[in-house]
Amino acid sequence: MRIVTLTTDLGNKDYYTAAIKGALLRQVPELQIVDVSHEVNPFDTRQAAYILRGCWQEFPKGTIHIIGVNSDVTVDEMHVIVEHKGHYFISADNGVYSLLFDHRPENVYELNLTQDTDENTFPTKNLFAKAAAHLARGGTPEVIGRRVEELKTMENFRAVVEENVIKGSVIYIDVYGNVMTNISLSLFREVGKGRDFAIMLRRASLDIRKIHNQYNEVPPGTGVALFNHMGFLEIAINKGAPGSGGGANSLFGLKINDIVRIEFNANQNR
Amino acid sequence: MRIVTLTTDLGNKDYYTAAIKGALLRQVPELQIVDVSHEVNPFDTRQAAYILRGCWQEFPKGTIHIIGVNSDVTVDEMHVIVEHKGHYFISADNGVYSLLFDHRPENVYELNLTQDTDENTFPTKNLFAKAAAHLARGGTPEVIGRRVEELKTMENFRAVVEENVIKGSVIYIDVYGNVMTNISLSLFREVGKGRDFAIMLRRASLDIRKIHNQYNEVPPGTGVALFNHMGFLEIAINKGAPGSGGGANSLFGLKINDIVRIEFNANQNR
Amino acid sequence: MRIVTLTTDLGNKDYYTAAIKGALLRQVPELQIVDVSHEVNPFDTRQAAYILRGCWQEFPKGTIHIIGVNSDVTVDEMHVIVEHKGHYFISADNGVYSLLFDHRPENVYELNLTQDTDENTFPTKNLFAKAAAHLARGGTPEVIGRRVEELKTMENFRAVVEENVIKGSVIYIDVYGNVMTNISLSLFREVGKGRDFAIMLRRASLDIRKIHNQYNEVPPGTGVALFNHMGFLEIAINKGAPGSGGGANSLFGLKINDIVRIEFNANQNR
Repeated sequence: MRIVTLTTDLGNKDYYTAAIKGALLRQVPELQIVDVSHEVNPFDTRQAAYILRGCWQEFPKGTIHIIGVNSDVTVDEMHVIVEHKGHYFISADNGVYSLLFDHRPENVYELNLTQDTDENTFPTKNLFAKAAAHLARGGTPEVIGRRVEELKTMENFRAVVEENVIKGSVIYIDVYGNVMTNISLSLFREVGKGRDFAIMLRRASLDIRKIHNQYNEVPPGTGVALFNHMGFLEIAINKGAPGSGGGANSLFGLKINDIVRIEFNANQNR
Repeated sequence: MRIVTLTTDLGNKDYYTAAIKGALLRQVPELQIVDVSHEVNPFDTRQAAYILRGCWQEFPKGTIHIIGVNSDVTVDEMHVIVEHKGHYFISADNGVYSLLFDHRPENVYELNLTQDTDENTFPTKNLFAKAAAHLARGGTPEVIGRRVEELKTMENFRAVVEENVIKGSVIYIDVYGNVMTNISLSLFREVGKGRDFAIMLRRASLDIRKIHNQYNEVPPGTGVALFNHMGFLEIAINKGAPGSGGGANSLFGLKINDIVRIEFNANQNR
Repeated sequence: MRIVTLTTDLGNKDYYTAAIKGALLRQVPELQIVDVSHEVNPFDTRQAAYILRGCWQEFPKGTIHIIGVNSDVTVDEMHVIVEHKGHYFISADNGVYSLLFDHRPENVYELNLTQDTDENTFPTKNLFAKAAAHLARGGTPEVIGRRVEELKTMENFRAVVEENVIKGSVIYIDVYGNVMTNISLSLFREVGKGRDFAIMLRRASLDIRKIHNQYNEVPPGTGVALFNHMGFLEIAINKGAPGSGGGANSLFGLKINDIVRIEFNANQNR
């Protein structure tokens, strides 16, 4: 039984996701379809990348991930199949892969599949589902695509280092109001080398000087910094959430793209 | 493996949809259950019909579609199983079928099934899931229903033609703010016969004189008219959405039931 | 094919639920995963209990229910597997079971499973999914847990009886604005013994003197009291909903924890 995941901005109200699922099941009845999210902000490729980045590796090898955000082809964009670490990804070549992976993916194919209808507004259903069905039946990407070397890139999630400072930014805010930054654990260790530090948030009065392992190592309602499931620095409020005492985003006044700095003690041994 | 789809106004928060799924799986463990939508506006049969209309034909023949909107029986409403083009539909006889299909469905049965509990507020679980399980196990509608000829009708989606004008209306607005009308491609071709036209929206200053095939044939932020996946005229903004520059509904000031007119050039050859 | 249900406050936008599903399917590919709800109010264990209470018995025996709300362990909380009536439940020992069942569950095990990552913020994925996979493969709870006798309790849903009065409260409000109380049908029968009664809501002028069996036994827009699917007293408006004439909660001014009293006629024979 093959798994197909769906990451789209199509929402959960309209018939769009059901039409995709119907098309998939009509072609491969025994598929296991998993919704990653259909609540990506409309046309927000970066957000789709962040969300899928957080879960694709949990799925077994052979899983096919459809990314249905900005999936229309334009003059300079093609549709692609990407093969990486035993997983397949199908999307438009809209830069999503430079955010989804740390490195260039293993194999890239330009999709050249003809759709079965003359209706052109729904490539996620008409083309991506057809390509996914082909792969799910054990077909190879070579049959429906042409190997290419180039993939579009997008300004990526990476933080910047300036001597004793890591300068990152807010890349995502989750349902609890937890704030995710682009500062990775490996960068934190590499630059910090065990020195003392202060995480400087927007409101200067609120800096954090310790990394915790779990939310509940601090009392409820208190700010906490930790590295999340993906290895990115997260600023949270233990048991805080919108409507439940306030999430970190509102309490610390943080929003997408805001700067988060970590200043390490320049006078300590490295 | 049989597929059951669910179209309801039960929402995604409460336990209601899970109770239906539990009841289905308890009876037929290997079912494939697909959510079409649980975010139909409460008691809005027309909206349920529009949403299911957009996807049921994508599913393979043999699929069973449960419509759990206004599913209580009343004095003059029965529960029905409808068989059409190899698909089954289970719902109350609340007029939904006059919007779901262009023509009268092939076979209609009044459901006469006794539920297993004396609890009367949840027919979608107690009756529709039981009927779906019967069909999914290969049972025929005749065993649990009585063939009938009549089905309730509801004022339908059809647009009106007045000489050189098609007078339609807004029947649905999707998550992007794209505006769907009841003007079908076949009617447009039949009345228009290739003549020039102007699509007149609520704000007279904004008329559209061209039909496109894809959203991105116009620049981002620009209005575009095309025939959607269902063959209905759609007014959209390329890459527009609420919170992302504004959808067509807000930019053109359109809401459900608003009139959309297409005026064809009366002086051109037909 | 085994079923795993998920009841969480993780929302439907973030990657969290997909990560859990990926982890489950990686371990047991043929699982059937059913979302009960991911829209539990953040950290609201009572609400999670109410929602799961409404549907777990619909699922076949052998179903595994993961409750991912307040799932972090604290000094005085453990992770548990609970076995009851042929179903399994996996959660933190946060009091949820005193609301989920009327009686102490049959078997309780403290989960002592080591997670495969050193990442500590996501026990629902790292521990609960692993435990569920073990059970789904036919493993016994004894292998991954230690039998214990104690379970945390939480102030429960039960209403209070004062002579001829049942004093209950609002425990849940659903998507239609229907108001659920903690007054059970069995308590109503036991105290009422068939006598006349008045259900006193917040606004004294609006008392209800009859229990109905179905919403549509009263005209649309009218208040109706009935015992819901779970056997709890529900106050509703037939065909009422937010945005559709108003739900019972807004029309009767009721919110969570508000008192609902049933006063029985003291002068009637019991």
